[in-house]
Amino acid sequence: MAGIDSRADAPGAADVRIDIERLLTRIADLGQIGRVDGPNGEWGNARLALTDADRAGRDLVVGWMQDLGLDVSIDALGNVVATWRGTDPTLAPVMIGSHIDTVGTGGRFDGNLGVLAGLEVIEAIMHARLEPERGVQVAFFTDEEGSRFAPDMLGSLVYVGGLPLETALDLVAADDGARLGDELERIGYAGTDPCPTTSLPHAFVELHIEQGPVLEAEGVTIGVVEGVQGISWTEIVIVGQSAHAGTTPMRLRHDPAYCAAAIATHVRHLTHDLGDEQVGTVGRIDVYPNLVNVVPARVVMTVDLRNTSDRVLQEAESRLATYLDELAETEGVRITTTPLARYEPVDFDAEMVDLVEATAERLGHSTRRMPSGAGHDAQMLARICPTAMVFTPSVNGLSHNIAEFTEADDIEAGANVLLQVVLDLLSTENGR
Amino acid sequence: MAGIDSRADAPGAADVRIDIERLLTRIADLGQIGRVDGPNGEWGNARLALTDADRAGRDLVVGWMQDLGLDVSIDALGNVVATWRGTDPTLAPVMIGSHIDTVGTGGRFDGNLGVLAGLEVIEAIMHARLEPERGVQVAFFTDEEGSRFAPDMLGSLVYVGGLPLETALDLVAADDGARLGDELERIGYAGTDPCPTTSLPHAFVELHIEQGPVLEAEGVTIGVVEGVQGISWTEIVIVGQSAHAGTTPMRLRHDPAYCAAAIATHVRHLTHDLGDEQVGTVGRIDVYPNLVNVVPARVVMTVDLRNTSDRVLQEAESRLATYLDELAETEGVRITTTPLARYEPVDFDAEMVDLVEATAERLGHSTRRMPSGAGHDAQMLARICPTAMVFTPSVNGLSHNIAEFTEADDIEAGANVLLQVVLDLLSTENGR
Repeated sequence: MAGIDSRADAPGAADVRIDIERLLTRIADLGQIGRVDGPNGEWGNARLALTDADRAGRDLVVGWMQDLGLDVSIDALGNVVATWRGTDPTLAPVMIGSHIDTVGTGGRFDGNLGVLAGLEVIEAIMHARLEPERGVQVAFFTDEEGSRFAPDMLGSLVYVGGLPLETALDLVAADDGARLGDELERIGYAGTDPCPTTSLPHAFVELHIEQGPVLEAEGVTIGVVEGVQGISWTEIVIVGQSAHAGTTPMRLRHDPAYCAAAIATHVRHLTHDLGDEQVGTVGRIDVYPNLVNVVPARVVMTVDLRNTSDRVLQEAESRLATYLDELAETEGVRITTTPLARYEPVDFDAEMVDLVEATAERLGHSTRRMPSGAGHDAQMLARICPTAMVFTPSVNGLSHNIAEFTEADDIEAGANVLLQVVLDLLSTENGR
Repeated sequence: MAGIDSRADAPGAADVRIDIERLLTRIADLGQIGRVDGPNGEWGNARLALTDADRAGRDLVVGWMQDLGLDVSIDALGNVVATWRGTDPTLAPVMIGSHIDTVGTGGRFDGNLGVLAGLEVIEAIMHARLEPERGVQVAFFTDEEGSRFAPDMLGSLVYVGGLPLETALDLVAADDGARLGDELERIGYAGTDPCPTTSLPHAFVELHIEQGPVLEAEGVTIGVVEGVQGISWTEIVIVGQSAHAGTTPMRLRHDPAYCAAAIATHVRHLTHDLGDEQVGTVGRIDVYPNLVNVVPARVVMTVDLRNTSDRVLQEAESRLATYLDELAETEGVRITTTPLARYEPVDFDAEMVDLVEATAERLGHSTRRMPSGAGHDAQMLARICPTAMVFTPSVNGLSHNIAEFTEADDIEAGANVLLQVVLDLLSTENGR
């Protein structure tokens, strides 16, 4: 394979494979940090971005990067990029990446798989004694989940120049009000590399669990991701009038908890109206003062709307906005909204998508082209370089749930597809 | 007035009046403890039961009781009773009482007025140099609001033997999970007097703000309370399946936040169906893990239902229970309920109600007979002695709101009605 100098005794690039035991061990080891155990033996992770648990997870993964002899750099937003330099320093590297932060009830595969499989790809190529001209990078991006600091995919968004660094550093945590920049300093991950990056990758590839039920339901091993759903997150604040729950006639109430309930049921109804591709979630509701016998004064809630069609997503947003206006009028409450995140649907590079599909088929796996229902760092990297994603099945479609699971065979298949896609991209014969 | 020995230079009992400035000063001083300021100059209190703020409030009021030379006793549940002994120790005392704990967004009149007006009644009678044969007691009962430890009216409930002391001591706080008995010890109010009480009052009178809009709307000064609404509090726990907000099709979700919303809108609808006397409130909603991009795993919420008719209240409870069963079935979630409080409607002693009405009219005030929409300690004391309540107007009907307010003239009118009712009850000629 041109562009990769193989020693005489090394296997051909097409025969290189990852070591599944080593990969599973690393996934399990990282999963011990912020581990959350369920009642029936299931277990996952709570490593919210820039918490102590996130720091411990970062330290572990950075240690593994250093053990491999990679150059580890940390940028001003805490994005970590480990580089295995190629023999020709003039060539842009191929980047593999994902994230290692989790939601509060996260699984141990979401994000982590993509990062640790990246290390496995490098180790497998090293082990095969291939010496690529082009470098390989493994990155993990800060606060992909957005659970603690909205918007999600924050680190990769700033990395590609989609949001000013200063704006990101000034974001405030949903849980404890901490400033992002302060938390980054606190955990020791406020680095010195520039963010946005000044070094464009040759290409970007992300291996990720599907986080949905489609691959498992169809018995398919590899999802060939064509693009990512558009995402719209809105925070809604409803200010009513707190009052005594016993003495205040129903007709005189201005009850923000009732309004929050009406909004959540409206979200359900609009997803029914707008077809199967439209999903909508009310994941957060905070009631003040939150007491059994007090008509609340105020409610803060979030609405997460997603669709592969930006036109339909806009229709969903518009219907929600109209409903909020009507509700504020009929209930005599004040409703204000703040956009927390808004990403248009993304289409990945067609040649990259073809490469993933052809590679998976060459390795003998069943494939299915599909959109991603979740947002991913790959959609941000797609702004600056050709990008692709590889999906592996999720048991019962579960994710953002400690029972999230992917079978070892599927992880192995996905990681080997990633490896072979990267090897193809490392070839300087490759026209890209 | 027989039964009250007046010295030669003292005014007749019918002419005794409270000192409104002294009463307002005490209300304002107590209000400084746990004070909460609003954006427009309004202010109220957060003195949740058995918190440090509650301890400070208790210490202040106990100090005033001691300044008046009263015997202060504290029972095993932290109920505080101050006694001004009469000249005939064989006669049961007249008790005045209410509470000094507040909700998280409480006003400074709710409860506090009844306790501090009680001190004012004693001070006014002392000042007039009347020496009643029958004693006068002023009591404040633990955890009337029930915001921190459900059920509400807990202290008076146990005081009258309506709930075992041990059960009450083992209750756990909604906010921080602390055990009630431990909190009582911590703040130094685990007393030695028996609870339930072994000493029955001759009668019980409670002055309270209306906490609703009726008196103000009708321009009436004194509400003559005939009884109290029945109260039903239920905690509802909904267990669904946490999942990714982007990748999980709507039809595959088991979303407890949607269920909570459906329940809250159902509560609104059933109050519409069951007539103006039926009120229903969802005051508390806790979502887990409460993140924008996660279909929640679990929601804990409360429903507060009240009605003057126990038959209709039972109908409301029954409709809610039926709806919960249907919802669990259609949404594939598990719903469990725990009763937090259940009190039947209470009718006060007819002669006591007549006495309040006649006294208010004698003092030249407009009156209105009415039920109480809120629960009060008086409804518990009604189980062991003849009981009455006096209501004063609430501006804009607000309560459980820091903007809660009652005009000084109305407070003065209410406290003087209380005083004259007590003086009547002190008379041993009074047949009761």
